Amino acid sequence: MKQNPSEKKYIHGYTALEQERLREQALVIEKPIYDFIDFANVKDLLEIGSGVGAQTEILLRRFPQLQVTGVEYEALQIKKAQENMSKLGYGPEKVRFIQQDATALDLDKTFDAAFICWVLEHIPDPVRVLKSMKPFLKPGAKISVTEVFNSSFYTHPYLPEVMDYWGIYNSYQVSIGGDPQVGAKLGNLLQEAGYRDIDLRSGGFHLDSRMPDEKQTVFTYWKNLMSSGAPLLIQEGLITATQLKAMQDGMDRLREMQDSVFYYRFIQATAYA
Amino acid sequence: MKQNPSEKKYIHGYTALEQERLREQALVIEKPIYDFIDFANVKDLLEIGSGVGAQTEILLRRFPQLQVTGVEYEALQIKKAQENMSKLGYGPEKVRFIQQDATALDLDKTFDAAFICWVLEHIPDPVRVLKSMKPFLKPGAKISVTEVFNSSFYTHPYLPEVMDYWGIYNSYQVSIGGDPQVGAKLGNLLQEAGYRDIDLRSGGFHLDSRMPDEKQTVFTYWKNLMSSGAPLLIQEGLITATQLKAMQDGMDRLREMQDSVFYYRFIQATAYA
Repeated sequence: MKQNPSEKKYIHGYTALEQERLREQALVIEKPIYDFIDFANVKDLLEIGSGVGAQTEILLRRFPQLQVTGVEYEALQIKKAQENMSKLGYGPEKVRFIQQDATALDLDKTFDAAFICWVLEHIPDPVRVLKSMKPFLKPGAKISVTEVFNSSFYTHPYLPEVMDYWGIYNSYQVSIGGDPQVGAKLGNLLQEAGYRDIDLRSGGFHLDSRMPDEKQTVFTYWKNLMSSGAPLLIQEGLITATQLKAMQDGMDRLREMQDSVFYYRFIQATAYA
Repeated sequence: MKQNPSEKKYIHGYTALEQERLREQALVIEKPIYDFIDFANVKDLLEIGSGVGAQTEILLRRFPQLQVTGVEYEALQIKKAQENMSKLGYGPEKVRFIQQDATALDLDKTFDAAFICWVLEHIPDPVRVLKSMKPFLKPGAKISVTEVFNSSFYTHPYLPEVMDYWGIYNSYQVSIGGDPQVGAKLGNLLQEAGYRDIDLRSGGFHLDSRMPDEKQTVFTYWKNLMSSGAPLLIQEGLITATQLKAMQDGMDRLREMQDSVFYYRFIQATAYA
């Protein structure tokens, strides 16, 4: 059941600025994600929802032996991903992108491992994706899934202008068929899709007065992430420009406070085909 | 500034039944807490807020070389703790309890290490406790603090009767001078109190369809924990008996659902005097 991509709503949008933010975001959050991902013994890697190649770039840098096949639904994102890979000097022998719907994959080979990061949160039926991949994984292939768990976001002090915005952002994502809490459900989803030896951990940021510089970086990063939803939220009449500004000012104040706290957890799953 | 204990509100109350629940609770949550606590090289341990001795019992069992001094504000809890220790065969050479206000300690010796668990959440000024302890710790003494972080509580599916009750429970704890998010602030608090080499981790439960038995146990445990606040919440007119029943029924339904998810994080800090 192929949709017209232009009819599909993606909370971050597809502007050039946003494509760049997705890449910068991946680099800021690289360490907490990749400290627990090991593809050292993998050659053929399948990446589902490769987008603009923000994670693909990190995968190729960290695991130089990899050959990556990225599956992505949006032609615009594939175009940007191909540009990014060319700039980095990765040719077709290292990475290729295939435009397909991840719930109905039709691939030309099988893979040693699969990688999914910040993708299932945007998909109405994530189990279909996990099941659709399985015939294209070799027996025993490792699968690594990293997903959001947005109810874990916490700041001290509590600022209603920040938390109310976050609530609206997440409710909107649910209304367009996404799931901002999908990380918490990865155990259920992987089990239902028939994977084995499922292991979950949580990672993320817990920043306070002990690490002022990293805290500043992450508050800025998070303000930009939250702002990336604003064009759609304003267009839908869910927030006003004033509310957006209040959220951004609130995040700036939190960033500058010595005793502020930033807390967020994503969930990472490892399982085997 | 000594208060009259009977004037002080404690969300769990001081009934015999509740004293027993505190002990059972400590045993259910023992593994996630103690897997990361090591007092193997400690002899003289100071426990702040020892209550009915629920953690003291675990400390003495896990670290047989320990001698514990428990400081507790409530005479009723000390009486129960002494009974519990006698039943377990621990005499005064292994454990003693001192009735003092932890914000103004006056002890007869110095200690190799200190332990605090589920205590700072009930105290209006936790930094005063951490500062008050410091003169009674030997230089380099290890301090271990485990505290709640109640905004991390999440269930799938979302049940308003459960989450609304939890919101009221936590707001009430704030209104009586407690802090249900104190765990998230432990880095700030320990730094302000002058401890060094502060390290934070989060622990807890993330249970789903993969571990149905443990999930059932923890949903029951959590229902009882939430219910322990009910007598005060009803007395204060913050919830009705009907709302309490709805929360309990909701937790029972979650416990029985195959695909339900239980998630909760506490925060554990290690630091040195």
